[in-house]
Amino acid sequence: MLAAASRPVNRRRKFGVDDLATAIKAERRTLTRPGAALDALIALCADDLRLVNAIVLEHMQSEVALVPQLAGHIIAAGGKRLRPMLTLACARLVGYAGQRHLALAAAVEFIHTATLLHDDVVDESGLRRGAETANALWGNKASVLVGDFLFSRAFQLMVADGSLAVLKVLAEASATIAEGEVRQMMTANNTATVEREYLEVIEAKTAALFAAACRIGALVADRPQVEEEALARFGRSLGIAYQLTDDALDYSANNFDLGKRAGDDFRDGKLTLPVLLAFARGDAEERAFWRRVLEDQDQRDGDFEHALAILRRHGTIAETVERARAQGTEARRALARFPDGPTRQALLDLVEFSVERAR
Amino acid sequence: MLAAASRPVNRRRKFGVDDLATAIKAERRTLTRPGAALDALIALCADDLRLVNAIVLEHMQSEVALVPQLAGHIIAAGGKRLRPMLTLACARLVGYAGQRHLALAAAVEFIHTATLLHDDVVDESGLRRGAETANALWGNKASVLVGDFLFSRAFQLMVADGSLAVLKVLAEASATIAEGEVRQMMTANNTATVEREYLEVIEAKTAALFAAACRIGALVADRPQVEEEALARFGRSLGIAYQLTDDALDYSANNFDLGKRAGDDFRDGKLTLPVLLAFARGDAEERAFWRRVLEDQDQRDGDFEHALAILRRHGTIAETVERARAQGTEARRALARFPDGPTRQALLDLVEFSVERAR
Repeated sequence: MLAAASRPVNRRRKFGVDDLATAIKAERRTLTRPGAALDALIALCADDLRLVNAIVLEHMQSEVALVPQLAGHIIAAGGKRLRPMLTLACARLVGYAGQRHLALAAAVEFIHTATLLHDDVVDESGLRRGAETANALWGNKASVLVGDFLFSRAFQLMVADGSLAVLKVLAEASATIAEGEVRQMMTANNTATVEREYLEVIEAKTAALFAAACRIGALVADRPQVEEEALARFGRSLGIAYQLTDDALDYSANNFDLGKRAGDDFRDGKLTLPVLLAFARGDAEERAFWRRVLEDQDQRDGDFEHALAILRRHGTIAETVERARAQGTEARRALARFPDGPTRQALLDLVEFSVERAR
Repeated sequence: MLAAASRPVNRRRKFGVDDLATAIKAERRTLTRPGAALDALIALCADDLRLVNAIVLEHMQSEVALVPQLAGHIIAAGGKRLRPMLTLACARLVGYAGQRHLALAAAVEFIHTATLLHDDVVDESGLRRGAETANALWGNKASVLVGDFLFSRAFQLMVADGSLAVLKVLAEASATIAEGEVRQMMTANNTATVEREYLEVIEAKTAALFAAACRIGALVADRPQVEEEALARFGRSLGIAYQLTDDALDYSANNFDLGKRAGDDFRDGKLTLPVLLAFARGDAEERAFWRRVLEDQDQRDGDFEHALAILRRHGTIAETVERARAQGTEARRALARFPDGPTRQALLDLVEFSVERAR
């Protein structure tokens, strides 16, 4: 007999472990769509990424069937695998010839996945990149617990690798991400959030794991501190640029980013940089508008279009893109010390992709 | 201006960092009530536990004010600090004279606290040990995120300690706990759960961290593998005994366990050992009763008393206590190889407390 509680879980089962490889392949095909600029990086990492995917598959297994089902769903739906690719590419950039970067890239992906699962619970999201979220399919409880499981698995992979330096970097990044998420929760819907607070949130929520993923590339190769720091700076600036671009894209008419629709942040009442800047410069009427639609989340037909008009009038979408570009410049600068070649070029293309997809 | 989302958070603020020490002291005073058998252990660990509390306080700090508020609430309300005391006492049992056990006991407490926070979200609990739960006070989102933060802090403490062996033990325990929680979620309310499945859940959910906490005592002291294993066996059996006793207590009329009322599991629709055993032996009418009250959670006045009568008729409360005693015997046996003295005696008293509080 089925348990009352497990019935919906079983009915909703949509993703088995066997489907993961297929889903990843399908996702990789679609990945070439948004940014041809990513092609070089994807091609460069393809062989390594296959091995990383195998490690991910192996380590998300559990006797408890729901664990790999749910984990497989979110991992396949989780996006571009940018973070593990950063570890792979940075290791290659500094001339690493071993195999340690593979399991550590998988650990990075597990941490990212765990935060996505918990994020969707926190955001009460129903969709991620156009697919139903794990919490929508299996419930919040399962998402919290499988997130915890994947987080533990990440640490098990690091322990097996055996480097305390790597463990330190990723434990710190994880704490920073959680703090950033709490801070975001406290400032969400708050039109009084100032730019500095907002940047602190995205530095913690997004840039910290980008930075850690890159730093690990230098760590596995035992490179000097100065290279480690340079790669961390690269990852950090790239992460901020990436997130700012995302914020701008959400108010862009030509939004071709996979699965994300223009206006998602607006509908969720998220205060992102274009809005914060416009709020600071707005008159009383505009501020009342932002408070109604974002703080009170009282949204009506035509509000999104009105929001767009205000943002355009103040030029804050373009300004957000400009700040993303400035961070992109920082990211490029951090790569200057590394030898030229296809890997550095692919990382420079990634910066380009991160800031220019907002056009 | 306050954010719409943060207003309730601020209104609900009930616990600041400054209150933690006071709360811990108050809690320690009440602790002497339920089991005088615990007195020796508490006295033995008192000095160390003060240092552990200081480490806990220091490492739960964050610039994001909600983090220490929420963490302080759950840590103060979190119970008897049994798990860190196990690390402290086991280290002492094997003659450890250093300081490493202190930070690692704090790490154990952080992991326990993180699982409590996520547990309460999963269980949708409003009360823990008679106090409002963090999720009831601050919301599920904050509980998920602060749980993640404390979990990361636990790993940071271990990284600072620098032992990969300890990291391995606690990363494994964490993964096991998360798997056990998912398994419990799948079997909750399911009267078809068999005893073996149930024992697997409590081994994973409760016994794994008890075992890890004890094992670390041997690890910091660099004791031979055989002692490490013995302490892990001790912790595991103690954990199972402790949980089985809890299950029995929930159907006990003389329930003097702190903050937990008789019938909590019943009202939550939790299937624990007394019920599973009674279900297996029940006639059609009894099974229909259990399905109604626990699977469908359709509970009426008098149902709890009826449940008690059925359990007594089948003798399954006493049988659960018997199994707890058998695990207690295993736990005592595991301590046999260690030198007699006040520490071993205090741990034997703890076993006694764990199984005999159900009388």
